[in-house]
Amino acid sequence: MSREHKRRGRGQSRTIAGIQQQAWKQPRNLYSPFEIASADQIEALHENSLRILAELGIAFLDNEALDILKEHGAKVNYSTKMVKFSPELIEEYIAKTPSQFTLHARNPKHNLEVGKNWTLFSMVASTPNCSDLDNGRRPGNFKDYQNLIRLAQHFNVIHMTGGYPVEPIDLPANTRHLDCAFTHLTLTDKVFHAYSLGKQRIADSIDMLCIGLGLTRKELKHKPSLISIINTSSPLRLDGVMIQGMLEMIRNGQSVCVTPFTLSGAMAPVTLAGALSLQNAEALATLTFTQMAAPGSPVIYGGFTSNVDMKSGAPAFGTPELAKSTLIGGQLARRYGLPYRASNVNASNTVDTQAGYESMMSLWPTIQSHCNFVKHAAGWLEGGLCASFEKVIVDVELLQMMSAFLDGPSFSADEMAFDAIADVGPGGHFFGTQHTLDRYETAFYPPVL
Amino acid sequence: MSREHKRRGRGQSRTIAGIQQQAWKQPRNLYSPFEIASADQIEALHENSLRILAELGIAFLDNEALDILKEHGAKVNYSTKMVKFSPELIEEYIAKTPSQFTLHARNPKHNLEVGKNWTLFSMVASTPNCSDLDNGRRPGNFKDYQNLIRLAQHFNVIHMTGGYPVEPIDLPANTRHLDCAFTHLTLTDKVFHAYSLGKQRIADSIDMLCIGLGLTRKELKHKPSLISIINTSSPLRLDGVMIQGMLEMIRNGQSVCVTPFTLSGAMAPVTLAGALSLQNAEALATLTFTQMAAPGSPVIYGGFTSNVDMKSGAPAFGTPELAKSTLIGGQLARRYGLPYRASNVNASNTVDTQAGYESMMSLWPTIQSHCNFVKHAAGWLEGGLCASFEKVIVDVELLQMMSAFLDGPSFSADEMAFDAIADVGPGGHFFGTQHTLDRYETAFYPPVL
Repeated sequence: MSREHKRRGRGQSRTIAGIQQQAWKQPRNLYSPFEIASADQIEALHENSLRILAELGIAFLDNEALDILKEHGAKVNYSTKMVKFSPELIEEYIAKTPSQFTLHARNPKHNLEVGKNWTLFSMVASTPNCSDLDNGRRPGNFKDYQNLIRLAQHFNVIHMTGGYPVEPIDLPANTRHLDCAFTHLTLTDKVFHAYSLGKQRIADSIDMLCIGLGLTRKELKHKPSLISIINTSSPLRLDGVMIQGMLEMIRNGQSVCVTPFTLSGAMAPVTLAGALSLQNAEALATLTFTQMAAPGSPVIYGGFTSNVDMKSGAPAFGTPELAKSTLIGGQLARRYGLPYRASNVNASNTVDTQAGYESMMSLWPTIQSHCNFVKHAAGWLEGGLCASFEKVIVDVELLQMMSAFLDGPSFSADEMAFDAIADVGPGGHFFGTQHTLDRYETAFYPPVL
Repeated sequence: MSREHKRRGRGQSRTIAGIQQQAWKQPRNLYSPFEIASADQIEALHENSLRILAELGIAFLDNEALDILKEHGAKVNYSTKMVKFSPELIEEYIAKTPSQFTLHARNPKHNLEVGKNWTLFSMVASTPNCSDLDNGRRPGNFKDYQNLIRLAQHFNVIHMTGGYPVEPIDLPANTRHLDCAFTHLTLTDKVFHAYSLGKQRIADSIDMLCIGLGLTRKELKHKPSLISIINTSSPLRLDGVMIQGMLEMIRNGQSVCVTPFTLSGAMAPVTLAGALSLQNAEALATLTFTQMAAPGSPVIYGGFTSNVDMKSGAPAFGTPELAKSTLIGGQLARRYGLPYRASNVNASNTVDTQAGYESMMSLWPTIQSHCNFVKHAAGWLEGGLCASFEKVIVDVELLQMMSAFLDGPSFSADEMAFDAIADVGPGGHFFGTQHTLDRYETAFYPPVL
């Protein structure tokens, strides 16, 4: 047999087998959340946030929003656009948020629960570049965009996409969202995300979603199926395009995740308590606004408070500070009965040891914070500047490991294995005992890599 | 300036600055332990272990040990060497163990607390090979042994050595322990470990330790300064040389850590509950024996229940199964009021992404289990077949990150940063504000790498 033939032979058999992966399943976290702040400390953060909103306020850079806020009892200054909230106003409207909702996918088997102890993993999003070992690093483009969506569809442990996995900058900016929504509606049947860059883009995405799901806008209103991330322009500011996109989302019954962009040392105080107070203030103000504009809207509390490297000013991820803020962010979200979003992020420039340990330094606290929506769960590299095809595969391994970790151990009599221990006796081995033979194929998590 | 000169210039300045590292500090874990088994499930494991010891027994391959066990009420079969324990006997002697003790170093500043919420990180141990990028992979030898000890002494976050970081197989086996103890007494002033390979080797190490500390054997007896790992020869067997070494240790007031070698699927049942029951049974029997032979001996409960890869039979580390067993092992140790040992281990063959994420998959649960003695904390590679110089440095980063994570966040009024947030206002940045300038040098963990 020729060498060429042999090689093809091996290649084919690998292709046929494919990558063995876990079956589709949305994990539930039945373990207790891991909490590092006391109830008193959480209340202190809460009080500090309310004080920020009552005494300093936050800028809403959109007159329609200012009208809504004023109408519902906030103190509005139209010339500075600053809005102040009384603590009672915040408490009143935050109480209207649902603690759990369903995100509907084109394939109902891929519907997702958001909230309580449900977890979901979403694909990397919003990177300007992408890379793989064969073709190197390149600016985002439509072909890679499509391939990354295909990967997200392929792996069961990636439960949805969370935006454009890479920005397809070769498409015209004014129609890009149409091509992207079309891709989402044709190359994946999982839940997807639309960017809140003004009202029209969201309206277009919703219209296309209605076609894809075979629903009218009226019907869609009762089926949250689209999600959009609302980033504040920290500190203390919410942009007009974000607001207009958000309004179009929630008025059509769709879900938004409010994530303040409070990097400690840059857009937020250099102290964790200060940065988390700012994160919390901005999230509470924006979420309060959603419930004024559309009471009961399905919303998520987003945490993204990492720190910057104080030597370079560059964002750092997978740091001890991010670990703490992720865990405390979860405590704050639970304080309000809100679903919680955090991320699997790192600042490494390639898929190396650092990428491995920084990702885990993000992912462990994310899981343990009872995060409901794990964003950037697969493929994030370079602090978000690059979507890496190899990192997608590495992250599939990490996410499957976490999913297996969340399968709590069984303590049934059979699993206690007294009889097997008696059978094998001192100095023997368990490889060949019936107890092992009955279980060896599924007893342990089988690594992909 | 010549290129050569320039290069030397840069090299020198790096040498002068050195690696910035954390100051010496033994971390305390003030967070709650993370527990994944219920109290009932822990009791079920406990009961299953007691049943194993009462009905099946465990082999002690040493007649002196059998005499001690018989004398103290265990049921001994001298022909099979099998020893059975009543539940009451186990409970009675386990109750004699101290829940905390001090390990004394040659430099008293490096004394270590073992137990309660104290944590300590110990160097990789017992690998047959070592490697670095410059010189490749090679069998263990005395020069590398010495250099690894120097590294352990250099880094403050490595609190002690935990055995030979690499086996110096170029030294004659019968005197190797003397050279190794001499190295420990001269190249490091931190606590060290001696192997329980029979009575004589331990006796020699204790004699040398007495010289090093300037103490008599009688004085040493009240100053635990040496530690030895006692591995059972799972399943259900304890070797004679281990027993004789252990007896010499505890009769001289020195500490032992009993770690059953219960790899699930190989030397222990393929189920987690079965493997943990066996681990617990073997640990309880051996620890009970220590308290019969020398009541009040400073002892540690060791957990090392990972799984094997069922395709190859090779030990796997950094798996979801190890994460669960590490956490439950901590719960069992706390059930008995015993200090707990776990490990920072991985099965990767080089310092790559896998080494990074598998280490973290071991280290996070280790920290969260309230592990008191983190063995193989720096330098472990290839499932323990290799000590890697580069992995030592990577692990120093991970351990320092964990140490920084264990520094709980402050919620003082100053850290809440209300005034700084007011100063900066909407849309500003925090890089130049006084609140940042006062803190930026120490606010965040500074990475080594």
